[in-house]
Amino acid sequence: MGSDSPLALKTLERIHQLAALTDEPGSICRTFLSPAMRQANARVGAWMTELGCQVSEDGWGNLIGHLAGTSREAPTLLLGSHLDTVPNAGKFDGPLGVLVALSSLESLANHNIRLPFHVDIIGFSDEEGTRFHTAYLGSKALAGLFDETDLNMRDSRGLSVREAVAAFQGVEEISLPVSRYRAEQLLGYVEVHIEQGPVLEQLGQALGVVDSIAAQTRLAYTVEGRAGHAGTTPMKLRKDALAGAAELILAVEQIGCRTAGLVATIGQLQVQPGASNVIPDRVCLSVDIRHPERRMVDEACSQLASEVEALACKRGLGVAHTTIQSTDGVACSSRLIQQLAHAVERHQSSVPHLASGAGHDGIILSRLTPIAMLFVRCKDGLSHHPNEHVDLVDIDAACTALAHFLQHVA
Amino acid sequence: MGSDSPLALKTLERIHQLAALTDEPGSICRTFLSPAMRQANARVGAWMTELGCQVSEDGWGNLIGHLAGTSREAPTLLLGSHLDTVPNAGKFDGPLGVLVALSSLESLANHNIRLPFHVDIIGFSDEEGTRFHTAYLGSKALAGLFDETDLNMRDSRGLSVREAVAAFQGVEEISLPVSRYRAEQLLGYVEVHIEQGPVLEQLGQALGVVDSIAAQTRLAYTVEGRAGHAGTTPMKLRKDALAGAAELILAVEQIGCRTAGLVATIGQLQVQPGASNVIPDRVCLSVDIRHPERRMVDEACSQLASEVEALACKRGLGVAHTTIQSTDGVACSSRLIQQLAHAVERHQSSVPHLASGAGHDGIILSRLTPIAMLFVRCKDGLSHHPNEHVDLVDIDAACTALAHFLQHVA
Repeated sequence: MGSDSPLALKTLERIHQLAALTDEPGSICRTFLSPAMRQANARVGAWMTELGCQVSEDGWGNLIGHLAGTSREAPTLLLGSHLDTVPNAGKFDGPLGVLVALSSLESLANHNIRLPFHVDIIGFSDEEGTRFHTAYLGSKALAGLFDETDLNMRDSRGLSVREAVAAFQGVEEISLPVSRYRAEQLLGYVEVHIEQGPVLEQLGQALGVVDSIAAQTRLAYTVEGRAGHAGTTPMKLRKDALAGAAELILAVEQIGCRTAGLVATIGQLQVQPGASNVIPDRVCLSVDIRHPERRMVDEACSQLASEVEALACKRGLGVAHTTIQSTDGVACSSRLIQQLAHAVERHQSSVPHLASGAGHDGIILSRLTPIAMLFVRCKDGLSHHPNEHVDLVDIDAACTALAHFLQHVA
Repeated sequence: MGSDSPLALKTLERIHQLAALTDEPGSICRTFLSPAMRQANARVGAWMTELGCQVSEDGWGNLIGHLAGTSREAPTLLLGSHLDTVPNAGKFDGPLGVLVALSSLESLANHNIRLPFHVDIIGFSDEEGTRFHTAYLGSKALAGLFDETDLNMRDSRGLSVREAVAAFQGVEEISLPVSRYRAEQLLGYVEVHIEQGPVLEQLGQALGVVDSIAAQTRLAYTVEGRAGHAGTTPMKLRKDALAGAAELILAVEQIGCRTAGLVATIGQLQVQPGASNVIPDRVCLSVDIRHPERRMVDEACSQLASEVEALACKRGLGVAHTTIQSTDGVACSSRLIQQLAHAVERHQSSVPHLASGAGHDGIILSRLTPIAMLFVRCKDGLSHHPNEHVDLVDIDAACTALAHFLQHVA
């Protein structure tokens, strides 16, 4: 399918078109149920219609393009990704997966190939969680996994999910969504997504197959010392919370380096009182630990807790931590992994298998049907940034591999 | 002078009275030329008048109580401290020095002792620099060391020093202040102040004599790495600015510990972009290094620069720093030190000699006349905090020692 290069160009051109649909002119930002998201759904819906899809939008902002298979009784394969973005986003995170699915199916149609199963291409309405600070609202609604807690989340203007969805549906009162699909009618869910990391680039490969989405624990640590005047408190009489935190930061890094596949990150840190001439008495920081296996994450958390306790004891500091969030990992379907790998190995020298450290809608869909993901190399591993970039040849590789996969999955 | 205990009580009672004069009800805050500062000057001025002082306020908010000596041709000894405070201040930082000077002179007066020299008790109007973010405006005005830069500083409401002082003086236009004193008419400047550190408490002594006010350099460091997704960037491919900053923090602490008398502090640190799931690409932090000798501060700064360069190189990080402020140390007068030490050794087992890591008005006065300082123990070394505390017996010791000093200094 070297002749697919025009399709990759078309995909890229569509990605640029979507990038222009934004709630914040000058940068890309499309959040759950926003005007730009409605525009994006209308635009992608039109492309789906061109392909011959029956297009619908559910009451939760999810766009669904149904492409019928050769038999009405056939099962359905779900393809897609999300159409919402973070603020000041790149062009590829999300839209790439929807548009590569569309292009692959267009490629098959161009070759007069009809699939023996139905395909639903889905553009999920909220994967990033930007508006309500809770991710996967779109896939949760689609899979009937929404709960009251989700409904009561509020955006920065104080509007609840319940109110926002009621306004979107044009009704007074909404009810909790039920699953659009029964498990037994589904073949699985396959998502193409940019890697959002540097591994494929380092390996020199365009595509990688995801084995699992990592388990994750987010902790909040507080280190307490004693404030003092920077000029008048001798070094040996100090209880410097920031010096203790520095040891904690290095402990987190070392724990991350000790275990293959583990990543450990401190992204937030605040120092109190925060004056240049006062010894810090309190440091609050976030710790984010991920690994494909939950038990490895738990082990890293325990290691950290005991190392931090030891350093706090040595320094006479107080330390406390709480768990902010803990999600289990999700294994991808070995059957789908194998079939994706077959498709990938046709045009690259090796097939990297990756764990996804980032969360994706597949975490939610996995409760309904087997899932798989195909990662596409992105420049410098950069994502959630205007400079996010995927090469045209890699988009082509993704379209080609997915088209091949679709012909052999049944 | 064991009978001075009532004077210590009176001193403490006055300190409590001053604490009630504040621009922010509920906490102590008196800033340069504020209404509370005028009230404080009026109150202290009344006590000075009771003692027999000729009281004046200069056009820059400094309060001066002149107590004439036995001879009109006699030189003048300056005593005092500052009456301004930081926001949410303690009661003792500043007022203690003014009121101990007053009490000591009252004690002498009660014993019908007249000194052979004039004494000016000064309440400086701006030692903390709270309002205009530049310290010593009061003593600079008094010593004729004000410059145009000082006049153009602006407070949080945009008012310049020039405008604030013109309003205070009730004039359209002000001119730069000239020195109130000629060097040859002065005996020196002696200030009693709380230690603002824990050394005297550790040593179990009420009073300490200051040998010097430390040299200080304030640096701003920036560590630059590369942002990345916390879930998708393997540990070995990271350039984590915060992990590099952690090594810098520990290097600063170790440099502080290696050299006796040196203190090194990081009080401010900001992490960018500051999201829990993003590897930090930029950390900005303050470094404050002090030692009685300028060359030791410079040496510590060089050591730090080379250690940071090495760690940045090892980690592939960028590092830059700028010098925000650099002040030389000031040596106290050996004659005044000796005389203060004699006064102190009369009622405590040993006489600690300290370097003041904090700056004081003496830094400015030293350009006009020999200076000395007497430090008073404070609880837990705490200062710039509502819980700042000095025991009554220590106030008594300070009053007694200063009274003794005044009788023997001539």
